Amino acid sequence: MPANAATPGFTDVLAAAARIAPHAHATPIVRSRALDALSGARLAFKCEQLQRVGAFKFRGACNAVWSLDDTTATRGVVTHSSGNHGAALALAAQSRGIPCHVVVPEGAVKAKLAAIEHYGAILHHCAPTIAAREALCAKVQAETGATSVHPYTDPRVIAGQGTAALELLTAHPDLDALVVPLGGGGLAAGTALAMRALAPHCRLYLAEPVGAADGARSFARGALDHDFIPDTICDGLRGTLGAINFELLRAADAQVLTVEDAQVVAAMRLLWTRTKQLVEPSSATALAAVLAYRPQFEGRKIGIVLSGGNVDLDALPALFALAKEAQT
Amino acid sequence: MPANAATPGFTDVLAAAARIAPHAHATPIVRSRALDALSGARLAFKCEQLQRVGAFKFRGACNAVWSLDDTTATRGVVTHSSGNHGAALALAAQSRGIPCHVVVPEGAVKAKLAAIEHYGAILHHCAPTIAAREALCAKVQAETGATSVHPYTDPRVIAGQGTAALELLTAHPDLDALVVPLGGGGLAAGTALAMRALAPHCRLYLAEPVGAADGARSFARGALDHDFIPDTICDGLRGTLGAINFELLRAADAQVLTVEDAQVVAAMRLLWTRTKQLVEPSSATALAAVLAYRPQFEGRKIGIVLSGGNVDLDALPALFALAKEAQT
Repeated sequence: MPANAATPGFTDVLAAAARIAPHAHATPIVRSRALDALSGARLAFKCEQLQRVGAFKFRGACNAVWSLDDTTATRGVVTHSSGNHGAALALAAQSRGIPCHVVVPEGAVKAKLAAIEHYGAILHHCAPTIAAREALCAKVQAETGATSVHPYTDPRVIAGQGTAALELLTAHPDLDALVVPLGGGGLAAGTALAMRALAPHCRLYLAEPVGAADGARSFARGALDHDFIPDTICDGLRGTLGAINFELLRAADAQVLTVEDAQVVAAMRLLWTRTKQLVEPSSATALAAVLAYRPQFEGRKIGIVLSGGNVDLDALPALFALAKEAQT
Repeated sequence: MPANAATPGFTDVLAAAARIAPHAHATPIVRSRALDALSGARLAFKCEQLQRVGAFKFRGACNAVWSLDDTTATRGVVTHSSGNHGAALALAAQSRGIPCHVVVPEGAVKAKLAAIEHYGAILHHCAPTIAAREALCAKVQAETGATSVHPYTDPRVIAGQGTAALELLTAHPDLDALVVPLGGGGLAAGTALAMRALAPHCRLYLAEPVGAADGARSFARGALDHDFIPDTICDGLRGTLGAINFELLRAADAQVLTVEDAQVVAAMRLLWTRTKQLVEPSSATALAAVLAYRPQFEGRKIGIVLSGGNVDLDALPALFALAKEAQT
């Protein structure tokens, strides 16, 4: 499958599963009596915070890296994500012994850059503008011949992300609905591919923060709507929905549910205290949606993908204060 | 085995394992490349934060409750712990359908009392003194005929706690050392019973906060030394070492390692960020000890019991501030 060209299908998800199996974890699925009681539903949580690099992102990055032919691979890969995708691509490249270039804007969080460097990536610093970022990416590509791997529109990435739902639906084929966080739509679109093939009776819900609700607006309009400035604590969900992702999600008749940041923090605290799993705010959007839209889920079997666990602990006091403020 | 009478042995641990199997979880064991690299050792973490009620305490309480003959059982059980043991005994009693009485002092944390009541226990409030507590316990016992289950000196409780190490050593028989938190000594003594039988080559280390180091002082003196006022964030480890526990730990040639609260918070943050497991401060004492006394552990295979995950999230900002203060 050439980069950024084809729309991926279920066979690509199956191929991805075989390709990443030697490198990625088949993550556990956990249940919680307390959260079942609270939601009135039967919840199965797919634990991608226990995936390598602490996020589902490793699946897609790994599939992209191991999809390359040997000659192309030796020239390496490049991306401009300084978040979980950057770290995931770095580790995936390390697993194949090829170079990984990550373009990072000045002012990026030092801890995240340290994580990316820890996995052996080469950092390229640029000014914090989209133009500077794209120019430097193009320059690195021209100089090295590295393959660009987009964090969520790359079909290899989408197929890779679909392997989480593949595992979840294989273990729980009787789920009535899947709920996943919606950012750029890599996880969501991959989930749609697996779900339509394995569980066509299943409904797909996309949980999106109110402060980055381009997905909800795009679905309402029937066309992509990127006219917004993200304002949410869900740092993994600030990206804009990709065109290919939107297309796959519409084909799956997915429904977007928006949640407030305070609801996300409350759901995150519930996940922490009830399952003892340290998930990041973006992960908690899905449970927040199940609780906020309870009538849609009550009495049903719900699969939830917990997308990652890379929490900035130093930011916690501010997050908790936010949720408390919203309660009063 | 009559209550508070006999010293338990390995056969009691085996009997406990069979007795609690229908009710308790066989918890997972997790590993972490990052923490192995950081410690220079090979660490296996037994996840008792994923045990029912979020702590190993359920094992001992469950064994005590299901050890009672039917006539005695119908009269119920009583304890005066408002922490994890109280919740554990309440759930264990619920599993057998018998009453559980918990004597709680005025001023006890409301969230903990709510958890205990949630499991169906009957709360009895008393003044916050040891005399008032013991008087009310005796009164409840006299009136109801309930069996008292001490949180860590009861031999049935000790045998039950030993099942965590039984599972860990069965899965990893080649461990060179076990490290467990030391409070009253229920988990520690139970671990000693399992270890001496299954892995006599193994060394037992007890991690204890400097602010509640009665264990370290007792070992140094060769006799119990309870002359202290606990001052530590490790709320599960403020109890004083029991006599029967001390005896079993000395027989196992256990060694106490003390750690500062700031080291505990740092280790807790490492466990959170590296394993994504929400463990409570008391749990983190063991990793803190492995890191603080690195030369004793380097290059060896170490089993660590993560004792529980009942974290007071509202207290986190203060905990983190404490650790930061100590660093500077």
